[in-house]
Amino acid sequence: MFDFTYCTPTKVVFGKNSEGRLGELAKEFGAKKVLIHYGGGKALGGELLSRLRWSLDEAEISYVELGGVKPNPRLSLVREGIALCRKEGVDFIVAVGGGSVIDSAKAIGMGLKIDGDPWDIYCGKIKPQKTVPVGVILTLAASGSEMSNSSVITDDETQVKRGCNVEICRPVFAIMNPVLTCTVPPYATACGCADIAMHTMERYLSGGETLRVTDAIGEDIVRTVIACSKRLLKNPEDYEARANVMWAGSLSHNGLTGCGGDGGDWSTHTLGHELSALYDVAHGAALTALWGSWARYVYKDVLGRFYTFAIQAMGVRPSGTREEIALKGIEAAEEWFRAIGLPTSIGELGITLTDEQVKEMARRCAEHCGGVKGSCRRLKERDMYEIYKAAL
Amino acid sequence: MFDFTYCTPTKVVFGKNSEGRLGELAKEFGAKKVLIHYGGGKALGGELLSRLRWSLDEAEISYVELGGVKPNPRLSLVREGIALCRKEGVDFIVAVGGGSVIDSAKAIGMGLKIDGDPWDIYCGKIKPQKTVPVGVILTLAASGSEMSNSSVITDDETQVKRGCNVEICRPVFAIMNPVLTCTVPPYATACGCADIAMHTMERYLSGGETLRVTDAIGEDIVRTVIACSKRLLKNPEDYEARANVMWAGSLSHNGLTGCGGDGGDWSTHTLGHELSALYDVAHGAALTALWGSWARYVYKDVLGRFYTFAIQAMGVRPSGTREEIALKGIEAAEEWFRAIGLPTSIGELGITLTDEQVKEMARRCAEHCGGVKGSCRRLKERDMYEIYKAAL
Repeated sequence: MFDFTYCTPTKVVFGKNSEGRLGELAKEFGAKKVLIHYGGGKALGGELLSRLRWSLDEAEISYVELGGVKPNPRLSLVREGIALCRKEGVDFIVAVGGGSVIDSAKAIGMGLKIDGDPWDIYCGKIKPQKTVPVGVILTLAASGSEMSNSSVITDDETQVKRGCNVEICRPVFAIMNPVLTCTVPPYATACGCADIAMHTMERYLSGGETLRVTDAIGEDIVRTVIACSKRLLKNPEDYEARANVMWAGSLSHNGLTGCGGDGGDWSTHTLGHELSALYDVAHGAALTALWGSWARYVYKDVLGRFYTFAIQAMGVRPSGTREEIALKGIEAAEEWFRAIGLPTSIGELGITLTDEQVKEMARRCAEHCGGVKGSCRRLKERDMYEIYKAAL
Repeated sequence: MFDFTYCTPTKVVFGKNSEGRLGELAKEFGAKKVLIHYGGGKALGGELLSRLRWSLDEAEISYVELGGVKPNPRLSLVREGIALCRKEGVDFIVAVGGGSVIDSAKAIGMGLKIDGDPWDIYCGKIKPQKTVPVGVILTLAASGSEMSNSSVITDDETQVKRGCNVEICRPVFAIMNPVLTCTVPPYATACGCADIAMHTMERYLSGGETLRVTDAIGEDIVRTVIACSKRLLKNPEDYEARANVMWAGSLSHNGLTGCGGDGGDWSTHTLGHELSALYDVAHGAALTALWGSWARYVYKDVLGRFYTFAIQAMGVRPSGTREEIALKGIEAAEEWFRAIGLPTSIGELGITLTDEQVKEMARRCAEHCGGVKGSCRRLKERDMYEIYKAAL
């Protein structure tokens, strides 16, 4: 096992009607002028925004609004948000949505505290030391961004997608009402569930042994999400299933499932980010389209991890060689992806790529991650090409 | 399931030699004049205190010291600590030890910010709004106080033991080096493991259904602690087992295992506190001496919880009636207590009580918890008497 630091200060307020406490929480964290930042989604089609405005009004906190966040949140909107916040004297950002909105809010929050361009943070040129605080009203269980130290932004001019991981960007509070996710359509629900499982799998299927208690929690999260994703296909308004997926989403990416581990592999995310950025693929679907090909490429290097994962998380019966069992675990994960309507190849996304396009995607992927990625195996551009190729 | 709030801001720094970072962490949290607060224990017999002093020296932070904390920490020492801190201008408390030292440090920290006597906090007369921050160097895995919102103090004049649960008393950082717990003797190690499991069991075996993912994490913690406690009997220096127990101890009581639950039952703790206070019994041993009698008294009221606990946490095979399986789970827990050398009755503690003494203990227990306790069943003085009696 590895030494670790763990700090998740986000205050979670979980349950029915919890969004009614926005004003009270914003006040608790010192908000005087709020930016309400949001995207689309059915949850917003209802009266959610009105209720949030009302809650802020009641707490005598003024606000401005900026909508228009789309999946794979855009740098141009972040810049627009920063300009608006400077003009209006905003000192607190409320993100109403899922990962894209939260990541965009984090980018605005950190961007407000630097002199340069916010993209410099994502290129690693500036390490942000402060942020305007961000609070979250979660309407999509997927990214875990509501408790995580992570934010991913796409430069819409160059289609480059980059992540930033810094402790200061963890939201100060996260309001989670599972009811708000009951209107998320099946495909987006499935993508979210895949993303949640993958946040644990990236940490679990990695190059080093970890703490048994951490592994066990990771196995639970994967099992719970698999079971609940299937329940939600049958009944999208199953409150218990929505609640379990929502909470699993936060725990999967707030650091808990990495305690004692080597930091995780993260190759699938890196490969997937490139696919998403170039072909505008939903994040969760990009992950499932590539994961099986990645897993088969590397599993022999960390056979023990894939073997335990197969038995403990995927419920594979322990008969056969360790290699056979590990492979059955990979197959079981892909079966789950298919069962909830997600692709297990790039072709199933409706995308046909030439060899040149695959080479270019691998080249960009290697460039954007600094040449090498992964802890199960250190992948270089050639490996990335092979994995993309196998996933066609 | 129930709505919940979850907030665990404690910064955990976990691993070998992590105590060398005390100075850096104290500085990060603004310490200028520190009280080093400690008790006994073999970890302190070595060079630990010297290394901590050196780390603070290096960070140019001055300090005073107050040792002498004993199990079931005493109000008189808390008062002494407050007077010392006022005199010396202390603005940060470093607790070096286990739950008793941390709880004593929390009491001093909160006591410094009120006008009245610190006991008023524990009697519920004053709700503390602020505290001098507390950082922890953990040397005993048991109480979970290093991340919890809880502190328990005993008035050494009246032998009354009382707990206080407020968010402000969560430590700002917790340095956890499993090596520091390798010298903890077998009986104290066993008591610690029992306490850790019990913090989850008090939340799990309660009156309401919770989140599946929360239950699963609770089951993991209990299973992990049982397995590791047995490894530690054979090899007290098993680092992985010490690390798992240490981290399980924090997760078991920081709120995670209660998310979505009804707040827990806590009868065993309440009954045990009285036994500890009157007869100076180690906390963990008081819990195991009483738990089985409590469990048999209430299990039919929440049969589903005891049934699932038996199968998922205790590994009981699901054959027989639900009631039989639940009872087997209770027996399995008691077998574990005995296997690690802990009592399953008051008699095994070497204490013989008259009926009058049992009545008096029940009377005090009921008085101190306001007359009623528990969520599996609402226990009154008569029930407490019956449970103590069954545990003789």
